[in-house]
Amino acid sequence: MRILGIDPGLGTMGWGVIDTDGVKHRLIQYGAILTQPNQPLPQRLRSVFKGVTQLMETFQPEEVAFEELFFSKNITTGMAVSAARGVALVAVAEKTDNLFEYTPMQIKQAITGYGKADKHQIQMMVRLMLSMDETPRPDDAADALAVAITHAHSMRASQLFKIN
Amino acid sequence: MRILGIDPGLGTMGWGVIDTDGVKHRLIQYGAILTQPNQPLPQRLRSVFKGVTQLMETFQPEEVAFEELFFSKNITTGMAVSAARGVALVAVAEKTDNLFEYTPMQIKQAITGYGKADKHQIQMMVRLMLSMDETPRPDDAADALAVAITHAHSMRASQLFKIN
Repeated sequence: MRILGIDPGLGTMGWGVIDTDGVKHRLIQYGAILTQPNQPLPQRLRSVFKGVTQLMETFQPEEVAFEELFFSKNITTGMAVSAARGVALVAVAEKTDNLFEYTPMQIKQAITGYGKADKHQIQMMVRLMLSMDETPRPDDAADALAVAITHAHSMRASQLFKIN
Repeated sequence: MRILGIDPGLGTMGWGVIDTDGVKHRLIQYGAILTQPNQPLPQRLRSVFKGVTQLMETFQPEEVAFEELFFSKNITTGMAVSAARGVALVAVAEKTDNLFEYTPMQIKQAITGYGKADKHQIQMMVRLMLSMDETPRPDDAADALAVAITHAHSMRASQLFKIN
């Protein structure tokens, strides 16, 4: 099973692709879709749309996991991230209905067993779980891999306990 | 010159198409893209994307005018509208770069000459300016026509005064 994880953002949208049998995970690739702050918003959103569409076509993931929005205190940032996330959701939904969402707390819990783990702990666990030589950069890509692994674990749980 | 006006929203996205020479405007068509609250967000956003894409293809507007986001006190609503607006911006940007935005105050000023006009006054003026027999419904469609007319006036101003 191939999973694409996405950590939404307008300036930097992290992504990571893994193959998994629910227990063991193999890293395929990771990175970030970057947009330039000096470009008009419609063009930036268009870059996000194109970028996510390309990921879907290149990696052909069977399931896609999104990190749920962190409600920013900065409403302008929150609006921009919402717009970018909406665009990414559509780009994915054009290709598959297998679209899942996890809160930051669910992700921390799944990766470290502790709902209040810090960014550093998450990154170290992602690195270990995917047998990576280095910590994935940027942070957004590490977060995207974390949400992909979270989804892999949640699938295993639903198989084991026959819940869905 | 053909203008498409859009009043962004997730549940109801108003739209209106006019032809204009900058002084006289002719109504072509108006309506709203509706999405169902019981559908998952990605599917609703996809309906918005398809709907706006269809408008662009059907009416082939040369320029598109958006109402700028009203910053909702309800952050959940604000996020949903941001996402829908982002998706609509991409659908338009796929077809044209001639994309403009106006604040609610600019629209009120352009339509009624008064920046604090109420919804009712806007609707009445839109009806008069487009020689319509009835007030356009839903409200979102009337607002979309208002932003299209606002853009028509702003073009006239930039022609008259050679500003751009």
